[in-house]
Amino acid sequence: MTAFTVIGHLSHSDGAFSLNDLPGSGGRMDILCRCLNASLFLSHDMRRDIICYLVLCGGPVPQKTVRFSGDLIRSLSPDERSAGALIKKALDIPVGSEFRDAAPGVSVRKGGLAQLMTEQAFAILDEKGIDIRTAEVIPEAFLLSDHLNFTDDEELLIKQCPRYSVGPACIHADHAITIVHNELDRRRHGWK
Amino acid sequence: MTAFTVIGHLSHSDGAFSLNDLPGSGGRMDILCRCLNASLFLSHDMRRDIICYLVLCGGPVPQKTVRFSGDLIRSLSPDERSAGALIKKALDIPVGSEFRDAAPGVSVRKGGLAQLMTEQAFAILDEKGIDIRTAEVIPEAFLLSDHLNFTDDEELLIKQCPRYSVGPACIHADHAITIVHNELDRRRHGWK
Repeated sequence: MTAFTVIGHLSHSDGAFSLNDLPGSGGRMDILCRCLNASLFLSHDMRRDIICYLVLCGGPVPQKTVRFSGDLIRSLSPDERSAGALIKKALDIPVGSEFRDAAPGVSVRKGGLAQLMTEQAFAILDEKGIDIRTAEVIPEAFLLSDHLNFTDDEELLIKQCPRYSVGPACIHADHAITIVHNELDRRRHGWK
Repeated sequence: MTAFTVIGHLSHSDGAFSLNDLPGSGGRMDILCRCLNASLFLSHDMRRDIICYLVLCGGPVPQKTVRFSGDLIRSLSPDERSAGALIKKALDIPVGSEFRDAAPGVSVRKGGLAQLMTEQAFAILDEKGIDIRTAEVIPEAFLLSDHLNFTDDEELLIKQCPRYSVGPACIHADHAITIVHNELDRRRHGWK
């Protein structure tokens, strides 16, 4: 089981955004949609052993975390709008501090990174980290930021976490997830 | 300079599709939009040395090819809708058999794979190919299919082309492009 968590610093934490304008009205919700796609999709299949957490920090209500479980999810297509619709559905239900089901394989709760840090031993995907191809073991939980750097408060929370890089270029979060998957796929199948 | 060409077997060859329904009304235009994103985007920058060709085979008019040049392109954001809008704009102008500019860095012409084959020495991205990490030199022009296999006619055209695989899993075309870029980035910067 591998988990990817993505922080959406500007992403709306309620469902009042338009699927016709995910970048603007959703607060760069398009980035989170692409990260969800990269986490879960194989060609004509889903990666059943993956969990993807999206942390929505952009208000207007306090932070929420939406969890997607590859083994249970239904009604998700690869396009951004499909992912956006599922996120929107999750954000529309009333929630407390425990995960509540919003759809098969999709659940949501109040809270963000601080709570996730008490549950997972994160490795940070960061272009200044050590090369993931040289890692003896691939970590089980990765944390990524959207198009913005981690905030000072977040950096304080994660300062003890190991950092891994997928390559020398500064790339989008969803592209980094795809490269981690490639490394995992190769190791699982005995490719070097 | 590296070029990625993606065949959209069902993708509309005129601009009469809705940006609100790229998968349905566009004939899986969402796939081509993600391939364009994977080809051209770095974090907060574009890959200037890349050309991306999208081949639209889904009718209702004969096949067209839209060409995107990373060094010239403007007005492209990473979200699918932005890419879809630029493709739609290109498909809306009248064209002949020579590339005609539709927007900065975007041009379009009639014709598809057969014409491209006379201009480029393609390597095919295919899960049955040889491992790209073992390639002595990374090819300069890659050909990919969308969610469908190459047709019999296409297979006949490309039967002499070398085939490369990016890994053991059967993945989406845009994810494969991202992994090729990772291999190129690593070699360019002396990472193994």
